[in-house]
Amino acid sequence: MILEKIKSDGLAHLSYFLGSGGEAAVIDPRRDIEAYLDLARRNGMRIVHIFETHRNEDLVSGAPALASLTGAKVWHGPNPERPVVYADTAREGDSFAVGDARIEVLETPGHTDDSLSFALHDPSYPDGAVGVFTGDALFVGDVGRTDFYPDRKREVAGLLFDSLRKILGLGDQTILYPAHGAGSVCGSGMADREFSTLGHERANNPRLKIEDREAFIDAKVAENHYQPPYFRLMERLNAEGGGRSPRKLLPPPVSPGALFDLGNTQLVDVRGIADFAGAHVPGAYCIPSDMLAAFAGWFLNADRDIVLVARDADQAAASALTLARIGYDRVTGYHVGIVPVATKDRAFASVPLIDTQAVGERVDQRPDRWTLLDVRSVDEFEAGYVEGAEHAYVGKLPDAAESLAKNAPVTVMCGSGARATIAASVLLRNDWSDVDVYLGSMKAWKASGHRTVEGG
Amino acid sequence: MILEKIKSDGLAHLSYFLGSGGEAAVIDPRRDIEAYLDLARRNGMRIVHIFETHRNEDLVSGAPALASLTGAKVWHGPNPERPVVYADTAREGDSFAVGDARIEVLETPGHTDDSLSFALHDPSYPDGAVGVFTGDALFVGDVGRTDFYPDRKREVAGLLFDSLRKILGLGDQTILYPAHGAGSVCGSGMADREFSTLGHERANNPRLKIEDREAFIDAKVAENHYQPPYFRLMERLNAEGGGRSPRKLLPPPVSPGALFDLGNTQLVDVRGIADFAGAHVPGAYCIPSDMLAAFAGWFLNADRDIVLVARDADQAAASALTLARIGYDRVTGYHVGIVPVATKDRAFASVPLIDTQAVGERVDQRPDRWTLLDVRSVDEFEAGYVEGAEHAYVGKLPDAAESLAKNAPVTVMCGSGARATIAASVLLRNDWSDVDVYLGSMKAWKASGHRTVEGG
Amino acid sequence: MILEKIKSDGLAHLSYFLGSGGEAAVIDPRRDIEAYLDLARRNGMRIVHIFETHRNEDLVSGAPALASLTGAKVWHGPNPERPVVYADTAREGDSFAVGDARIEVLETPGHTDDSLSFALHDPSYPDGAVGVFTGDALFVGDVGRTDFYPDRKREVAGLLFDSLRKILGLGDQTILYPAHGAGSVCGSGMADREFSTLGHERANNPRLKIEDREAFIDAKVAENHYQPPYFRLMERLNAEGGGRSPRKLLPPPVSPGALFDLGNTQLVDVRGIADFAGAHVPGAYCIPSDMLAAFAGWFLNADRDIVLVARDADQAAASALTLARIGYDRVTGYHVGIVPVATKDRAFASVPLIDTQAVGERVDQRPDRWTLLDVRSVDEFEAGYVEGAEHAYVGKLPDAAESLAKNAPVTVMCGSGARATIAASVLLRNDWSDVDVYLGSMKAWKASGHRTVEGG
Amino acid sequence: MILEKIKSDGLAHLSYFLGSGGEAAVIDPRRDIEAYLDLARRNGMRIVHIFETHRNEDLVSGAPALASLTGAKVWHGPNPERPVVYADTAREGDSFAVGDARIEVLETPGHTDDSLSFALHDPSYPDGAVGVFTGDALFVGDVGRTDFYPDRKREVAGLLFDSLRKILGLGDQTILYPAHGAGSVCGSGMADREFSTLGHERANNPRLKIEDREAFIDAKVAENHYQPPYFRLMERLNAEGGGRSPRKLLPPPVSPGALFDLGNTQLVDVRGIADFAGAHVPGAYCIPSDMLAAFAGWFLNADRDIVLVARDADQAAASALTLARIGYDRVTGYHVGIVPVATKDRAFASVPLIDTQAVGERVDQRPDRWTLLDVRSVDEFEAGYVEGAEHAYVGKLPDAAESLAKNAPVTVMCGSGARATIAASVLLRNDWSDVDVYLGSMKAWKASGHRTVEGG
Repeated sequence: MILEKIKSDGLAHLSYFLGSGGEAAVIDPRRDIEAYLDLARRNGMRIVHIFETHRNEDLVSGAPALASLTGAKVWHGPNPERPVVYADTAREGDSFAVGDARIEVLETPGHTDDSLSFALHDPSYPDGAVGVFTGDALFVGDVGRTDFYPDRKREVAGLLFDSLRKILGLGDQTILYPAHGAGSVCGSGMADREFSTLGHERANNPRLKIEDREAFIDAKVAENHYQPPYFRLMERLNAEGGGRSPRKLLPPPVSPGALFDLGNTQLVDVRGIADFAGAHVPGAYCIPSDMLAAFAGWFLNADRDIVLVARDADQAAASALTLARIGYDRVTGYHVGIVPVATKDRAFASVPLIDTQAVGERVDQRPDRWTLLDVRSVDEFEAGYVEGAEHAYVGKLPDAAESLAKNAPVTVMCGSGARATIAASVLLRNDWSDVDVYLGSMKAWKASGHRTVEGG
Repeated sequence: MILEKIKSDGLAHLSYFLGSGGEAAVIDPRRDIEAYLDLARRNGMRIVHIFETHRNEDLVSGAPALASLTGAKVWHGPNPERPVVYADTAREGDSFAVGDARIEVLETPGHTDDSLSFALHDPSYPDGAVGVFTGDALFVGDVGRTDFYPDRKREVAGLLFDSLRKILGLGDQTILYPAHGAGSVCGSGMADREFSTLGHERANNPRLKIEDREAFIDAKVAENHYQPPYFRLMERLNAEGGGRSPRKLLPPPVSPGALFDLGNTQLVDVRGIADFAGAHVPGAYCIPSDMLAAFAGWFLNADRDIVLVARDADQAAASALTLARIGYDRVTGYHVGIVPVATKDRAFASVPLIDTQAVGERVDQRPDRWTLLDVRSVDEFEAGYVEGAEHAYVGKLPDAAESLAKNAPVTVMCGSGARATIAASVLLRNDWSDVDVYLGSMKAWKASGHRTVEGG
Repeated sequence: MILEKIKSDGLAHLSYFLGSGGEAAVIDPRRDIEAYLDLARRNGMRIVHIFETHRNEDLVSGAPALASLTGAKVWHGPNPERPVVYADTAREGDSFAVGDARIEVLETPGHTDDSLSFALHDPSYPDGAVGVFTGDALFVGDVGRTDFYPDRKREVAGLLFDSLRKILGLGDQTILYPAHGAGSVCGSGMADREFSTLGHERANNPRLKIEDREAFIDAKVAENHYQPPYFRLMERLNAEGGGRSPRKLLPPPVSPGALFDLGNTQLVDVRGIADFAGAHVPGAYCIPSDMLAAFAGWFLNADRDIVLVARDADQAAASALTLARIGYDRVTGYHVGIVPVATKDRAFASVPLIDTQAVGERVDQRPDRWTLLDVRSVDEFEAGYVEGAEHAYVGKLPDAAESLAKNAPVTVMCGSGARATIAASVLLRNDWSDVDVYLGSMKAWKASGHRTVEGG
Repeated sequence: MILEKIKSDGLAHLSYFLGSGGEAAVIDPRRDIEAYLDLARRNGMRIVHIFETHRNEDLVSGAPALASLTGAKVWHGPNPERPVVYADTAREGDSFAVGDARIEVLETPGHTDDSLSFALHDPSYPDGAVGVFTGDALFVGDVGRTDFYPDRKREVAGLLFDSLRKILGLGDQTILYPAHGAGSVCGSGMADREFSTLGHERANNPRLKIEDREAFIDAKVAENHYQPPYFRLMERLNAEGGGRSPRKLLPPPVSPGALFDLGNTQLVDVRGIADFAGAHVPGAYCIPSDMLAAFAGWFLNADRDIVLVARDADQAAASALTLARIGYDRVTGYHVGIVPVATKDRAFASVPLIDTQAVGERVDQRPDRWTLLDVRSVDEFEAGYVEGAEHAYVGKLPDAAESLAKNAPVTVMCGSGARATIAASVLLRNDWSDVDVYLGSMKAWKASGHRTVEGG
């Protein structure tokens, strides 16, 4: 019996390939399904079941494509309001064979109404579950968010409490296989570690340590979560079946001139923070390739074309793949670097990167009309910010920054300078003119010994 | 915190790469250490510790080479009689940081005197160990063999009992990371599954379920294990430091003629059972590439050259790598296939493969001087054999078969026909002349409904 | 300007990727087009033209799929009788830019009526062509076959003569880029070398050295060529557009039992000559994976399912890919090896491999009703055969062997034993019962000093 | 017979693998020799000869390492003053078999005294050479430089003339296989195309078209070439044997703090032009990874340690490999990106990138003490520069720029802005304080329609 974890970086999405006796099951496949087919081939296995722990809101499921290629059925939890058209419904107590392994279904609503967990048993060693696939119900160090049903906040938090107790009932010896690891937008408190057991979570997971149901509900309801607009697209695609990931992931290269004749096309510079600051095409979003999974969904429209500026073709291809995983299939071209733009005497722009000393001086001197804009999450902000800083979450820009004057100077900061540069690119696209970025941001501020203010 | 398992097929050897916060540790590295260096690179980590759970007797350790390339120290258990010259000594209670992770040392003798286990803790979630690297003390479904100190059989079995209780003391929630999986020569009862926890083992592992110390000792002492001769070489290499695996793993191709002018060179046909039966160079050992790790050590002399007959260069290279992992570095050439031999009008030979019907008829008719030779392990043999069959373990041939007349007909069988073909090649090399192989062997015998006899 | 050759082993098909200044052209793409897309990506190029030298009769063109993915047009020669529906027509003198390179079209009929050659010029170094893509008009050491228009034999041979003179007119300095290399079914006299120039061919190519048009025609008309039945399928697919190669190239593994319940499904053992001889499933074709491209088209029906017996999943996948390249998409499963068949007590069979001594004795003694069947091509046979041997080309079996009695003993031979084993499998499928194979065959016969007979 | 070109990007070095009949030869192997060993393995070949066209001055030869691994001899031209200790001497008329191919030696001095060319013949098609390996004597579109013997300028240029006539004597049909392609420091006029024949060169190569020996000598003597200091190291290593490339190509990651405690260690930022401009560690050289081969040898000391700042571990590894190819083995660490530096509140710096409009205004207004420094080669400069610009070749900085005041403002330009950024980093390391870079540089200047001045 083998169990392989397939991780999608950026999304921190975890899917699993379980194989035994020539058969295999895949749990929560991502859209680019080659990894599962390769594992099946390398191990001489036939994929016989596909399990979904819930309808993912942050990525496109590969289940329908994998089902059509392998003939395996997709099993999904009950979802009467919006049935998953490509799946059959699995219910509490259902049991599935995968070679010599057995999968038993637990209904574990809370994060979503259709959440299932799948307990893994080895009939040759039958005493207790070996592992459990918990989806977004239980993570290492955290539990699922419960903000998707605003009208039923307390109810679904309570459902999650009950579901977690049910999962814990499998016993301390059970290995935990969640659907996300650290870095996911599906939970903010996850451990940096990607492996655990129910026993270790029971003893250490802050949310599991809350034994009182009402106290658990209170804690969950008090959490702050952001929902990027593309979640709506995922909801639809993952009910209707998202379509196979495009086979031609790398679009053709485009000339520098094409970057200046875009019409409705969205220009996304995926190179990186420092490159963008050094020189970029005016009007481009700055979303570094390793931040695309988390931030593209806030800014980009899936119904319009996208052209990338990348460091090389490999980065462009990786970016197109990441975008496809979250439903953006309309990448129509890419351009390598900024030098070819400059040599054609096309316009380029820079974003000044400033350091703690410069920010400290401005904070002290309060230059006229200057704003220090902190674009971290509200939780991060309230845990400690530079006195006088204004707050607007990067994903909510520019709306949230409307109160700032566009022609007044703005310094953007975040935790390190990365999200701040994304935010700067968004402001510049929206006619702010005098924007710089505090590179190092809150970490540098603290490292330098400056003090912070807490609270809302 | 990441933890990657690196498996060496054939040996079923498991090593681990633990990384956290830019640092990494490797537990029980194999000789070809590129996998660890690649993981370090991909994750941007520096290898800072190398841990050995014990002195391996079945493969060459990569610890000295990895240490010299990375500057990391090697930590090994106390071994006063034959110190591991490339290692420092770790003792009960020693503690090591790997980024934000901690490794704590448990002395767990029994399998060997120097056996250590390494408990893995996550200080951010401090309640109980997350996992434990148990080496050859505890496997999934089995425990370590205790036959390496023939004069101290009961003592070391008792030591292992105590060590296992110490390990179980880490708690049910602890994930189990052993040094071998199913298929290893280091344990015959391992589960086919490669992941478990202490809790699941406590409830299911047949040896752990023996709660009485004396009963445990009795059970261990009653086990039968084989020790291939190359274990002596491993003992020496893993005390003195085995040397880096040879960089030039693939030797040059040799002409058909060279296969007939071998002198002291050992000719090993790694193609496979059916190919060998079809046609092979007379005098060649038949050891299919995926059986080399388990059987080369019985027959080959590490101080003499080896030439391979392979299906293609890739199979030859994989075979040379497997041989290097167990200390055979003198592969000096390879030849692809048998057709070039035949077209040069060089001699080739075949081994008849016969089926259940043919064997059944002979068993019924008992032809004059015919022997049915069963080369499985003694445990397998005693659990059920064909009436009238003689037994000699494949690794002990031809000595064990000396009582058979060389010019009388022999049919060799095992579980499936694979080990039987290896055995046939050994007999043919030793002047037996009338040898055929029962393809399907005991599995086919049983599938056909024939009856078996049990006992010694 | 870069030029990469992409070779499809087995078919010995050569296609080319020409790139310059961010643009690329592909000449004669094969069906699995990933290689071209990868080259475009690695080099940051956009594929702008696809050229076909003629309608291939031995493999499925990838041009329509590549065109649909890239938007590039396909250019093909005039073919009024059966237009290539996915292509535009290119004619003598047409000229195409690929970045800074230029492609100029020459109509070079003879091998087929629609044959084009494409001269490559570098306008920065304009004096004379740099290279020429000749398709199946001119190879290294040979010229194209002219047997595809049986009613117009002399006419098309003459057309080819004229076309070759036109090509040579490009000058000695022109590098030759043909569509096939040694081993192709599209020419029997090709050099083993894959690079040449028009100058070197003019001086060395036996056919080009015939300066008299009538003598050239006589020589071409006297050639013997075989046309496997699948050529008809290729003709249709390459006019209508063959469809993309199936993305799921590896079918699922099947159980041993499935090999015995095949109905109309064709069972093909791709493992190799020696494996097949050792043990195989009765009724299987023996076509080793590296011989599939040349021989599958003689025996397999593209409208019926195919199940493979392979050494491992990689060999099965490679075989499925080769089959897809020649239009066989219905590979529905594969099985690894023969041992699992035997252990289920399912039937297996062997083919005795015999050597020169055994064949020589039979030739001398002429056993009653015994036949020595030589399955090489008629040209090979007539150049020298064993006295008394009967001839029937492997591809024409079993029809050609109908005169042999099915229950009389047959020994099959060829050049080395490989085609003979394929032939033996075909005879066995057709109720011949007493078949063995001369391993080494004519090469061994000659190496042993035996004499041969020449002539028809 | 196969012939594979192995290209080392950056150096634009071309080596060749020639194989035939189970044997292979390598011509001008680079230091990382895995590519040749892989080709030998994939093709089932034994490397039997290693040929060097001359003692390379721009990269470390892999010949001694390849010889020691394969047992093949290295053949090199006569070099009495500084014998190549690992090689045997090959002379005019020597002939070597490689399977069915033949290599014939031509002494072709001029570029160096020890220059050989190797004509490739196919004895099965014996009329005329198939190809010729010309080393640095003849390139596509150019001929070798003749500036390595300053006291014998005219003599060696004449020798080269004679050698080229000897090479051309092989005939128009001969395919040209030179040791470098476009982008090499070994010739400035090479074609962008990497394939040609002697016939095409005879008709198109500007230098070959000079038929008069004295005119050829005049033209060669008038050329300007730069010799980076590391050529001395290559000269020594390639006479004495350069040692195998280090197996551990990727050094460990280092902390941000280590970048500020360097002592004698050289810090090289390989990320790229725009990243460096955006933010970098003060004191770092900017040499983008794809420019290392051409520029590291001007600035770095091979006897001192090197730490890299890279975008990721892959870029660091590729950079370490490139450095090893030119003899820099002391890469002791790498750091990923600049953000971790900033978050530790460590110092970072930026380089302003300015555009044509800004430069144009300064050129018009001539600000006080401002200098426009053009760092292109003297040939490029004299072919057209911005009026008022000063010239100093990037490789000769800062010595050549000593006449500039360090505390006066400098704008650096080149062809595109890339070399200018390298130059800016060198100036900043040498205490210039007010440096910016004209991104786009001469190409942008011309694209914008500004005029240039010609001449010295």
